Amino acid sequence: MSDGARMRSGGRAARQRVRQAGGPPRPAYLTRTIPPYALLSEEGLVRIEEAADRLLAEVGFEIRGDEEANRLFVAAGATLENGRLRFPPGLVRAIIRASAPAAFVQHARNPARNVVIGGDAVVFAPAYGSPFVTDLDGGRRYGTIADFENFVKLAYASPHLHHSGGTVCEPVDLPVNKRHLDMVAAHIRFSDKPFMGSVTTAARAADSIDLVRLVFGEAFVDRHCVILGNVNVNSPLLLDGEAARVIRTYAAANQAAVCVPFILGGAMGPVTTAGALAQCFAEAMVCVALTQLVRPGAPAILGNFLSSMSLKSGAPTFGTPEPALAYFAIGQLARRLGVPLRCGGNLCASKLPDAQAASESANSLWPALLAGAHFVLHAAGWLEGGLAMSYEKFMIDAEQLGAFHVLAGGLALDEDSFALDAFRSVPPGGHFLGAPHTLRHFETAFYDFALSDSNSYEQWREEGGQDIARRAQKAWRGALAAYEPPPLDPGIADALDDFVARRKAAVADAWY
Amino acid sequence: MSDGARMRSGGRAARQRVRQAGGPPRPAYLTRTIPPYALLSEEGLVRIEEAADRLLAEVGFEIRGDEEANRLFVAAGATLENGRLRFPPGLVRAIIRASAPAAFVQHARNPARNVVIGGDAVVFAPAYGSPFVTDLDGGRRYGTIADFENFVKLAYASPHLHHSGGTVCEPVDLPVNKRHLDMVAAHIRFSDKPFMGSVTTAARAADSIDLVRLVFGEAFVDRHCVILGNVNVNSPLLLDGEAARVIRTYAAANQAAVCVPFILGGAMGPVTTAGALAQCFAEAMVCVALTQLVRPGAPAILGNFLSSMSLKSGAPTFGTPEPALAYFAIGQLARRLGVPLRCGGNLCASKLPDAQAASESANSLWPALLAGAHFVLHAAGWLEGGLAMSYEKFMIDAEQLGAFHVLAGGLALDEDSFALDAFRSVPPGGHFLGAPHTLRHFETAFYDFALSDSNSYEQWREEGGQDIARRAQKAWRGALAAYEPPPLDPGIADALDDFVARRKAAVADAWY
Repeated sequence: MSDGARMRSGGRAARQRVRQAGGPPRPAYLTRTIPPYALLSEEGLVRIEEAADRLLAEVGFEIRGDEEANRLFVAAGATLENGRLRFPPGLVRAIIRASAPAAFVQHARNPARNVVIGGDAVVFAPAYGSPFVTDLDGGRRYGTIADFENFVKLAYASPHLHHSGGTVCEPVDLPVNKRHLDMVAAHIRFSDKPFMGSVTTAARAADSIDLVRLVFGEAFVDRHCVILGNVNVNSPLLLDGEAARVIRTYAAANQAAVCVPFILGGAMGPVTTAGALAQCFAEAMVCVALTQLVRPGAPAILGNFLSSMSLKSGAPTFGTPEPALAYFAIGQLARRLGVPLRCGGNLCASKLPDAQAASESANSLWPALLAGAHFVLHAAGWLEGGLAMSYEKFMIDAEQLGAFHVLAGGLALDEDSFALDAFRSVPPGGHFLGAPHTLRHFETAFYDFALSDSNSYEQWREEGGQDIARRAQKAWRGALAAYEPPPLDPGIADALDDFVARRKAAVADAWY
Repeated sequence: MSDGARMRSGGRAARQRVRQAGGPPRPAYLTRTIPPYALLSEEGLVRIEEAADRLLAEVGFEIRGDEEANRLFVAAGATLENGRLRFPPGLVRAIIRASAPAAFVQHARNPARNVVIGGDAVVFAPAYGSPFVTDLDGGRRYGTIADFENFVKLAYASPHLHHSGGTVCEPVDLPVNKRHLDMVAAHIRFSDKPFMGSVTTAARAADSIDLVRLVFGEAFVDRHCVILGNVNVNSPLLLDGEAARVIRTYAAANQAAVCVPFILGGAMGPVTTAGALAQCFAEAMVCVALTQLVRPGAPAILGNFLSSMSLKSGAPTFGTPEPALAYFAIGQLARRLGVPLRCGGNLCASKLPDAQAASESANSLWPALLAGAHFVLHAAGWLEGGLAMSYEKFMIDAEQLGAFHVLAGGLALDEDSFALDAFRSVPPGGHFLGAPHTLRHFETAFYDFALSDSNSYEQWREEGGQDIARRAQKAWRGALAAYEPPPLDPGIADALDDFVARRKAAVADAWY
């Protein structure tokens, strides 16, 4: 199936609008009509591409413990010496350009929730991978499957999140070797939005794909993307065998690997942003190229997780200006390469949903959107550099995502928007409150923040003088109380239960 | 003096670096090397210019109670009928293009603090005009001259603020008709950064200019900009006579009027952003044109204060997406017109320095920077839609301004930044912590937030588990305790005292 046909056939369903319970109809994903930000000139972009090529040609890249992946690259023209792959300049780019789709549809079990990943589409997904969860009154503790289900429900209930995410928190109350089954099943049971599968081993990736086959059917899954797998590179310039096998497992099943170098400048990469950026681009390209060698045309996403570190403590930092600049550049590079881009959304280092958390998050979300990121992971809930998933931060972040829908929609410049009739009806120094033009547009004129308080100081104090975190607490409790699961075919539900039970019974629990 | 010469002669001094007490040398203003964001196409910009032209030609603009201003516009080609000026399409733009400088230097009493306003320069100034001040322990109360002096000192002490601002808070303990003297004197005494004068009446504007003449000398002031006056338009499409006289007073003295339509969509303008934007542009152009009719070549700044309102309460809202889009557009329009642009910086509606305040502020600061704003007012301290100046928010905002210095500096793409030697020295999967390249760049690699906490959760909790507002409290108290005034010539200090005393003795106190 060609990329174009892929876009056309899936796009129609994906662009259908979904009516949320009680809310206005919302699109299943955001369509950006404003242009991406062009930080670098053509010359600057070429310099980074050349630096990435030089890294791969002169320093090389190691896939440690996956002979098949090494064999595929050697067959494609790379050299392998002492375990190190070296690539002639331009080789990985050529492999990608030959077959990787610039955009694809990820199907949801509710077709109205299908999302497009690539092009002008933007998809917001919750934060991923926190071992801890936290809320205002409950404090910080290890995540459980109950927390996991709660965050799936909150993402389902939010009109601003298009995706159910993956490991929305680690359910540490479940065995390490079995929790992936419960996680994937929870995404299917408690949401009808698209989601991500396990990547901790190739066998768990295969389990994840087997589970979605029960929902969508084997033939459909072989032809359509229905699950993503988010794979971290072992930066610098290393992919371990298990990660390589996970990438191959997703690609072989025609499912999308998200290939994400994880680079904190100074630790897994150089402290200079240009170098870390070239490295990130090189590493991600190798992994995307691997997907194409496994199965030409398989969907894949180029990932970017590049942050800075504190000069005082060596701790990872977020919301700093250096990664923001890198976002803009990688956005341009991904568009030139012609693959969808993943960026982090509302990243922060703060331990609380305070002003630090919000500034840091905005300093990631703004560049993600303007860079033209297509799949924005960690868009809601993230605290402490990803160590904790916060119930309150989830709601605060989601509200910002809503605002970015309006921002991404751009300025309407039609005749009515210029409101000449309104100006004719209001005298100089007068007001527009009762003007027919105002009444005609009032309800849809401005994005209406639900959690932000714009009332007078007096009214705000009368209502308890709360900060936004306290209002967010009320909001997530309300959303969970009002939650109703989307319908699920009982036959599919039984098949899922059966599969999970059989898989669990087959091996003993492992806790590490 | 030509614009070019103005830039060249002032630029050298302004680009000198200032060594802050204890800190690294910092430039006196930010130089943006990253390109502005191009939201709209040429066609879209022309549509807005045409809409502005239509407003001024068909609806008109009233200057109520200043015959001289009306006379100047009629002499330049406008028509006046029933008090309403109407302008042939393109007239105000032609007046501005004929003589208004695209960039100018605002001189400070310390030449190393001179700032460029226009071009690639960005100047950050504190928030302006709050009747209230607030801090964590002291709570919210009316501002006093002691608070005013504190904020002048904090702006002086911050390497991230380039400007002392104007009415950093209202000193409501001083008579309304005399407080402008104390405010201007405080800017001169407690700081050596550039600042703004009074705009509440033309006489107070004249007093402000007389005061700076004592510092810089009459001849210097006649040839150089040393003070700004921030004048609000009485939107929609009205300028009252006193405001017009204030603009004329600054322009006649060759000082820069900042011409700022104050538009909350739905109240002083239409709810549709395109209409409010065309209105804002039209109103600001008329005022900038007035400065040029008074004195061709006088410096002036095109202002933009355009926000939305709550659909629930009619309260002004900040950090919403509609004004962000307007920022980008007005930035493009100002560049086409060739005049410096003022935007608001860290605006918010929140009553506290919480996550709401920080999100809203970021949603103003990001578009201000990327729009290419030259003079960013309200860049630190603003809460409650401008009703309160917060000591903690001031410090939190300033830290973000520091980050934007790095962001605006862009990506270094030199050979050393690509760090090939570092990659050669680190094996795949290794780390860069001890690499010579890392050690060579470590200290300057990343922007180092002072107030943001990136430590481990355990360490953060051990240190008190504070949010950023509490850490900011410690910071502003420390900055005030460490404050030392910049040297001031005793003869000038005496002359200021004498002038203020004489002016105060001349009339009785007025409190309204």
